[in-house]
Amino acid sequence: MLKEMIEEVSRTNEAFYHAFESLDIKKMDEVWAKEDYVTCIHPGWNIRSGWPDVRDSWVKIFNNTFSMEFRLSDIMIQVAGDVAWVLCMENIRNTADGEPQEAQVLATNVYERQHGRWFMVHHHGSHVM
Amino acid sequence: MLKEMIEEVSRTNEAFYHAFESLDIKKMDEVWAKEDYVTCIHPGWNIRSGWPDVRDSWVKIFNNTFSMEFRLSDIMIQVAGDVAWVLCMENIRNTADGEPQEAQVLATNVYERQHGRWFMVHHHGSHVM
Repeated sequence: MLKEMIEEVSRTNEAFYHAFESLDIKKMDEVWAKEDYVTCIHPGWNIRSGWPDVRDSWVKIFNNTFSMEFRLSDIMIQVAGDVAWVLCMENIRNTADGEPQEAQVLATNVYERQHGRWFMVHHHGSHVM
Repeated sequence: MLKEMIEEVSRTNEAFYHAFESLDIKKMDEVWAKEDYVTCIHPGWNIRSGWPDVRDSWVKIFNNTFSMEFRLSDIMIQVAGDVAWVLCMENIRNTADGEPQEAQVLATNVYERQHGRWFMVHHHGSHVM
């Protein structure tokens, strides 16, 4: 049962990164819970809270990114009831403003199960020095 | 009931920052769950996982810090079952290596309720640019 849960959360976490790579806001819409309490901290940014503000941050990122590729490592998944938190290292290759960049970002992703489906409720990404 | 829960989590979050300010590892011991799955990301550091490694990171920080003062702002608390996640801005004044420094760190803190008491299971701090 717990193993199944962890697999479900793992698939939801992958869906989040596929949405991120797609740079398609409609795919991001499918991943997030549309709640007042959803929150997002992009590396170096201030907190975005509430779905409209969180969504707007993704629109801004997608508009300023030409391509984005993730390879995840160090994935840790913990499930307790209807909440799951995932830690992972995002090994990123992206092109912004015409310049290819490589970066490592550590992420805390929190998911909540609503009506049997997992949705993202919090993302916190930060650069590793 | 939910209001009480949020107050409990709020007090636990304050206890974490009091422990941090005290620079006393024994106080930090009281805040954290002693689990294999506890995790900690200090600003710019890599992931520490498992209580011994997480504890060691606090010992290192406490040994290299002369004084530390927190003023918290933008506190957001969410509780779902036996899990709670707290976001806050840590407005920090500290002295390390003899130099006074001011910094703003955004934190995601995850707490889990075990036998009726809340314990920290994850801390992720990152600098705001």
